Amino acid sequence: MSSTSLVVVQQGPPLPSGTPEYEALRTLILDEFAAFVPEALILPRHITENPPKDVTGIPRECGILSPEEIDITEKYDAVSLASAIASKKLTAVAVSTAFAKRAIIAHQLTCCLTEWFMDEAIERAKQLDDHLEKTGKTIGPLHGVPISIKQHIPVAGHYNDVGYLSTRMVDDRDSLMIAILRKAGAVFYCKTNQPQSIMHLESTSPIGRVLNPHNIGLSAGGSTGGEAALVAMRGSILGIGTDIGGSVRGPSAFCGIYGFKPTSYVLPMKDFLNGGALAELNILCSTGPMCTSLRDMNLFMSVMAAAKPYIEDPRVIPLPWDVSTSTQLQEGTASLKIGFAMNDGIIEPQPPAIRALNWAREQLAKSSAFQIKPFELYGTAEAMKDIRLAYWPDGGNLIKSKLAATGEPMFPLTQWIIKDAEGAGLTASGILDQRLRRDQFRCEFSQHWAAQDVDLVICPAFVGPACTHETAFYWNYTALWNYVDYPGVVLPTPIRALAKGQEDYSSKTPLSDQCKHVRQLWEEVDFEGAPMNIQVVARRYHDASLFTALHLMQDALQIK
Amino acid sequence: MSSTSLVVVQQGPPLPSGTPEYEALRTLILDEFAAFVPEALILPRHITENPPKDVTGIPRECGILSPEEIDITEKYDAVSLASAIASKKLTAVAVSTAFAKRAIIAHQLTCCLTEWFMDEAIERAKQLDDHLEKTGKTIGPLHGVPISIKQHIPVAGHYNDVGYLSTRMVDDRDSLMIAILRKAGAVFYCKTNQPQSIMHLESTSPIGRVLNPHNIGLSAGGSTGGEAALVAMRGSILGIGTDIGGSVRGPSAFCGIYGFKPTSYVLPMKDFLNGGALAELNILCSTGPMCTSLRDMNLFMSVMAAAKPYIEDPRVIPLPWDVSTSTQLQEGTASLKIGFAMNDGIIEPQPPAIRALNWAREQLAKSSAFQIKPFELYGTAEAMKDIRLAYWPDGGNLIKSKLAATGEPMFPLTQWIIKDAEGAGLTASGILDQRLRRDQFRCEFSQHWAAQDVDLVICPAFVGPACTHETAFYWNYTALWNYVDYPGVVLPTPIRALAKGQEDYSSKTPLSDQCKHVRQLWEEVDFEGAPMNIQVVARRYHDASLFTALHLMQDALQIK
Repeated sequence: MSSTSLVVVQQGPPLPSGTPEYEALRTLILDEFAAFVPEALILPRHITENPPKDVTGIPRECGILSPEEIDITEKYDAVSLASAIASKKLTAVAVSTAFAKRAIIAHQLTCCLTEWFMDEAIERAKQLDDHLEKTGKTIGPLHGVPISIKQHIPVAGHYNDVGYLSTRMVDDRDSLMIAILRKAGAVFYCKTNQPQSIMHLESTSPIGRVLNPHNIGLSAGGSTGGEAALVAMRGSILGIGTDIGGSVRGPSAFCGIYGFKPTSYVLPMKDFLNGGALAELNILCSTGPMCTSLRDMNLFMSVMAAAKPYIEDPRVIPLPWDVSTSTQLQEGTASLKIGFAMNDGIIEPQPPAIRALNWAREQLAKSSAFQIKPFELYGTAEAMKDIRLAYWPDGGNLIKSKLAATGEPMFPLTQWIIKDAEGAGLTASGILDQRLRRDQFRCEFSQHWAAQDVDLVICPAFVGPACTHETAFYWNYTALWNYVDYPGVVLPTPIRALAKGQEDYSSKTPLSDQCKHVRQLWEEVDFEGAPMNIQVVARRYHDASLFTALHLMQDALQIK
Repeated sequence: MSSTSLVVVQQGPPLPSGTPEYEALRTLILDEFAAFVPEALILPRHITENPPKDVTGIPRECGILSPEEIDITEKYDAVSLASAIASKKLTAVAVSTAFAKRAIIAHQLTCCLTEWFMDEAIERAKQLDDHLEKTGKTIGPLHGVPISIKQHIPVAGHYNDVGYLSTRMVDDRDSLMIAILRKAGAVFYCKTNQPQSIMHLESTSPIGRVLNPHNIGLSAGGSTGGEAALVAMRGSILGIGTDIGGSVRGPSAFCGIYGFKPTSYVLPMKDFLNGGALAELNILCSTGPMCTSLRDMNLFMSVMAAAKPYIEDPRVIPLPWDVSTSTQLQEGTASLKIGFAMNDGIIEPQPPAIRALNWAREQLAKSSAFQIKPFELYGTAEAMKDIRLAYWPDGGNLIKSKLAATGEPMFPLTQWIIKDAEGAGLTASGILDQRLRRDQFRCEFSQHWAAQDVDLVICPAFVGPACTHETAFYWNYTALWNYVDYPGVVLPTPIRALAKGQEDYSSKTPLSDQCKHVRQLWEEVDFEGAPMNIQVVARRYHDASLFTALHLMQDALQIK
């Protein structure tokens, strides 16, 4: 993504070209974006033209941010920011200014934004400061906390698109979740990049490709890659993503942040996807927070539960958000049974992913509060085959018409994800067959879980660290959980990928052709510095139990 | 339904004839049924050939049941039966024998059964009695309680069909709910009649037409009409139905018993419908108890919740079954806000339905524990139009192929329910459009409810009392709640329909053409003796709150 006036770092293969009409529209959008960025916030050319591999230090070093702004953006999470604003240690204006500035710096290095509206944010922050000054009270638990929003989620007065330039439009009102956050005091200041079709595990859109801040040769993941990169750059401490195959968990893991995909309809998604989603006939999407601490995820969930979103949107299930935040097992309570799934039977994760799991297992094994077991994932191959078909009950035809409307070229990962289903669409009975297969699988999966007698499962968040650009082919470790609709959190570990050649698979035999392919990618790529997350999963609708368990594991797993 | 050896009372228009193959199959089924019925349990011809209008007294008077059997079948509900068996006041064998005998009497008067297996029930009851004798313990909370089951619900070793003779088969294992009930000690002894396609609000199957025990000129309702008639005859005190448009609530109301349709997936339906249901792509079915007391419904729900059915079937939502059975409002608690919906804006209910609502309102108004409000139902016309289409995303083609397989004729109410959707099936995008319309409607409906600020709604259970045969055309008062997926209980009141000509509409102007049609039916039919239920509805997923509220209203509404 570059315009005449704003250079944005890009890596990987060039974006495919489209028709002149499409290219003109892209240019228009890029220029419109650039026009809002003040000269003072533009990085020097020597940085954007010769960026280091790891760009996370640049915001601190580039001279654009004041020492106070560096402090604000680096030393807080949402809980402590809200508290500092409520106690008037910080003003909402100072906080919004700092994050908006850092966000536009992050964008120039990772292409994480699609829209940036600092002025509106500061105006809103001013009103919040005035309110606190006058009344002595905050307007809600998120008073003054800046929150970044994925591009397709409607925020009043701002652009959304559902993965194609032809669907780009300005929303006239907030979607339900945004309205709840706004009422709780949140400040919105940017929208973040997502891939074409919103169905890649990376984030390459017509606006540009989102880069991984820890190693720009790698992807930030997707489809909520803009959020993940922005949070990793600390241009945001709390963002909202959506996940129908890994789109919250994948990018959170790629970028080393916290991400939560709840069970479907635990959180409100009303008006999140203009035109609806054909995939949701059988695979329900989910939405959740991406942030830098467990307590921020918990704060987010508590704010949502308190707002009773089921009244505006009765698809939301009013399960009690009943979380114990104790970090110690209560006397007389059974130890937590944790199953470790080291692979899915198809793809053995790349070495640092195994190292991260081993680290977690060793940490947990030190305490009698945890009973560690091996865990076998049931039927991944079957689930993956079925989910890839269930995503596209129309054979991918809607995508093609959305692309054709502006002459937008089909990107390689769009082609990749539709290819198994491409062609004729299904009839009602074909869609019912998918439903029955899905439900049968869910029952078998659940019984298989029960037979292994565990409370939680810890497994990889992806086949390895963040992949190199345009190679996020295998969704297994995240999409399986969408297929069964289980809640999952990804957590950073202290493990990072080493430089190329410094570690290798311990076993010699690939589990499958896909495994062979993943091994080949391991040989070819420099993953150095990529963070390694693990994924913690609970049974369907056991979202609150998952959080209680995370608190119990907080010390062992060094969870922030 | 008649065979050479078993006469079953029938009323209303004759069943349409099918091909010789179909008629031969029917005869075979009827003869097979009759072969199991001992001579001693066959009613005298003078009764079956000249039945009174109200047949509820015949089991007591016909001389087939002993005084103890009359006591057992008339003086208990499930809670007190379980208690009497557990304390050895009654044996499971005596109880099963009494109900099985009464059930086959009921069948000869109302055509309520499709299968009857007294010998198996007594064998099972004997095992239960032996267990209790040996161990001093019951095997579960339903030890020895007989439970009747709707025909399409799989019970190991027995027939099921999904509404067409061509789908008739013997199940080799219990469906999940049946397995839970069996484990809790239930005794199965019969399966009950349901209509062709299981999609009428009456119960006319190839086996015969289910009659209303209170007035055999009227329908028992449907699609769980066999259960409703059997329970009203006290040939069962607890039955299981399913409801996608009123199929638990309609027949329960027609026959004056208690019936509960929970929110979808509050109870397990695993394996309930062989081949699945196309309608469920957008309208979720529900299942629930039909019985003679609130505490039996609560017992049933508690047994289900305790069994954790979500482990075998993760579609089930593990909402806590957290019911207060207090009949008094606790000090300091806000009064219950109850909205009364006297009509749906399209069809004014027939006079006794209005009388029943007025009775309930007057009863509740006597106590300060209840705040009574008028309530307006939102968008029934739109909902009914959409639900009638959503039931048949394939344009009704599957029905036609199921009928054609044995030359089964399409019954009039089957034709009635498919007619709006008949023709070409939908594509994926057509099904998505229905989903989006449904979800939009659900949001609007919920907001409209919230604006009226009520905890519960009380409304009619049908457009009037039980209708005369083959005239259950208007599903509005039940199907609306399936469309929004709210839980609803129907409750008997002391009100009954008077003899023809003894009461009339108070207003002169019909609300619509449908209303005119319902008024015309009112003029033509003798409803005398038909019981009048009311329907109590709560928000989606507020099933436990609904039960807490029912306990609070127990005295005022004379709830058993």
